[in-house]
Amino acid sequence: MALNYAKRMDNIRASEIRELLKLTQKPEVISFAGGLPAPELFPVEEFKRVTAEVLEENGTAALQYGPTEGYLPLREQITKRMEKVHVNITPDDILVTSGSQQGLDFAAKIFINPGDIIICESPSYLGAINAFKAYEPKFLEIDTDDEGMIMEDLEEALKNNENVKFIYVIPDFQNPSGKTWSAERRKTLVELANKYNVAIVEDNPYGELRFEGEILPAVKHYDTEGRVIFLGTFSKIFCPGLRLGWVVADKEVLNKFVMVKQGADLQSSTISQMEVAKFLEIYDIEKHIEKIKVVYKKRRDLMMKTMEEEFPKGVKFTYPEGGLFTWVVLPEHMNAREIAVKALEENVAFVPGGSFFPNGGNENTFRMNYSNMDEDRIVEGVKRLGKVLREMM
Amino acid sequence: MALNYAKRMDNIRASEIRELLKLTQKPEVISFAGGLPAPELFPVEEFKRVTAEVLEENGTAALQYGPTEGYLPLREQITKRMEKVHVNITPDDILVTSGSQQGLDFAAKIFINPGDIIICESPSYLGAINAFKAYEPKFLEIDTDDEGMIMEDLEEALKNNENVKFIYVIPDFQNPSGKTWSAERRKTLVELANKYNVAIVEDNPYGELRFEGEILPAVKHYDTEGRVIFLGTFSKIFCPGLRLGWVVADKEVLNKFVMVKQGADLQSSTISQMEVAKFLEIYDIEKHIEKIKVVYKKRRDLMMKTMEEEFPKGVKFTYPEGGLFTWVVLPEHMNAREIAVKALEENVAFVPGGSFFPNGGNENTFRMNYSNMDEDRIVEGVKRLGKVLREMM
Repeated sequence: MALNYAKRMDNIRASEIRELLKLTQKPEVISFAGGLPAPELFPVEEFKRVTAEVLEENGTAALQYGPTEGYLPLREQITKRMEKVHVNITPDDILVTSGSQQGLDFAAKIFINPGDIIICESPSYLGAINAFKAYEPKFLEIDTDDEGMIMEDLEEALKNNENVKFIYVIPDFQNPSGKTWSAERRKTLVELANKYNVAIVEDNPYGELRFEGEILPAVKHYDTEGRVIFLGTFSKIFCPGLRLGWVVADKEVLNKFVMVKQGADLQSSTISQMEVAKFLEIYDIEKHIEKIKVVYKKRRDLMMKTMEEEFPKGVKFTYPEGGLFTWVVLPEHMNAREIAVKALEENVAFVPGGSFFPNGGNENTFRMNYSNMDEDRIVEGVKRLGKVLREMM
Repeated sequence: MALNYAKRMDNIRASEIRELLKLTQKPEVISFAGGLPAPELFPVEEFKRVTAEVLEENGTAALQYGPTEGYLPLREQITKRMEKVHVNITPDDILVTSGSQQGLDFAAKIFINPGDIIICESPSYLGAINAFKAYEPKFLEIDTDDEGMIMEDLEEALKNNENVKFIYVIPDFQNPSGKTWSAERRKTLVELANKYNVAIVEDNPYGELRFEGEILPAVKHYDTEGRVIFLGTFSKIFCPGLRLGWVVADKEVLNKFVMVKQGADLQSSTISQMEVAKFLEIYDIEKHIEKIKVVYKKRRDLMMKTMEEEFPKGVKFTYPEGGLFTWVVLPEHMNAREIAVKALEENVAFVPGGSFFPNGGNENTFRMNYSNMDEDRIVEGVKRLGKVLREMM
């Protein structure tokens, strides 16, 4: 049997991360590969209570279909999260999604004809690249410095390409680079989007996990014409297993997301939305986020310190001010995929960086996650990795 | 601001049902519009227990990311559901989805290039039509009799069209028509799909809700070459608020679904999957399904009886042997959308049938749901509707 698939399927590959994660399930593997939050910080006891209360007070509604837009009390709570990134909205500006991954898929579905252009940071989030590829876009990667995309390069790209549909950015503690955009650069980004009439997709899963300094206003904060689509999620500040995220967008654009959501899965889980709304109502999530930040900061500090001590000269890495990742750049002759194989023999895992570049290349890079391993394993894992790197220099 | 959307967005409209459902939220409305299960039958107490146990035994895993394919013990349980429709498989043949709606979206994403043909029953499920439309197919509708699609018409369509990608069918208690395919017709369907090398998407949300007679083998049962994609769901036999369904397909095809799922939302809710697996482990779902069937059968009987008494001559409707819906055909000069407006003035709602025909027409039809209203409201609602129909004849 040889069925005829759609042309778009030629572009879709299994996510390297999720395939790799399967290999790293073994307890003896020290994994810096996934983007997994620390499970020991999940508010399991609190979640037991909110679940019991939701089922007690409102059991049948919790198990029934609900509106595509999402559970209203949850959308009300989400407006408060948006205030933290300086965005003032009402529940009507929000669609609840099944993780922010779903928002990425929908953004491409709404905007991309085959051959249209998506501009993204170089590197960019692998899961977004894979989601976008199903809609057969071309990618233009723009280099970044310590303040975000280089605006001259961005304007050049916008000027020279007519069919750019949106600019995809992760302005806070970017996945995979760990870099953060300056406020000034965010403002300029919106100005350029206005000038060239393109949308911006702002993916912000980590913004609240800032270890030092003040949370910066989201790109959406600077949006003057309703062209910024903001994607948020509970995966990193609460837990990912519930699969709950959200989209904030201008009325007309949000309406497209709602229609696409109807076709894609009707709505996100009613009970999960009620549980999270209840949690946000009766518990102090700010306190919970503080707890996460203390642990992650410690782990970042330890990973940075150990990398400095153990990695050979010529290996560079970023210093993230928050989030979950640091990004390693090796000398150009080195290949991170080969190193990953050697590292796995030592029971250490990371994600080779090549897949984070939609147009390929850059095989001398890799991504390290510090949120999911305890301190002992971070030290031990980085040491083993340092040894592998020294051997392969 | 005028953003440029993808061409596919021209095809996507808000679901008439879900928009209508918003109007029918008012408690005074007797609604035969939605496809909502009876919430009073949801196993709320049992669900409280399984949730508490899952969080007690395995709380952190329940809130963490899990595999895209789905939680293994749930997939093991799903193999038992498939035995009921005479399909013997292993957990590896299953992908857990966010409702079977997601399986519909993925099927089109995997197979459809713009202009490709989907063959479906006439009428067909509105939610599937809307999901498919995002991929810009053409639809060929095939008439049905009391045993399913008319096979001569189907073969004619397959013979005369090269780019048919799949045949979409709901063989049991079809939404919206309430009709069921005979075993013989199911077998012939597979033979024709083999002969013309197309896939079959079998959507089976209601198969286990048979009020009389034996459950028939699924179309998938007759699959000799791995070309039938079976979509199942817990929405109608358990509850829809969790958004859990599944895809059963041949290895190569299932692998495509898994890759598409990774891009679409990474995975379905970990905790919901664990909860349902636990429910299926410690409770007898067959008993629960029996309970549902007793109630729905009573409601169907009452709706049929009252329609016979109250609807004017010249109005025809189907007699469903299970499931949630009956289908009403009015004399050709009548328009169900106009009648729906009048009926809403009397606080009665149903779904006009036109939207169930992807190529339009057939405005003299409508769909009636009997699962969601209690017996008094069924009688009262059908009486009011009868009055409106008599006035408009």
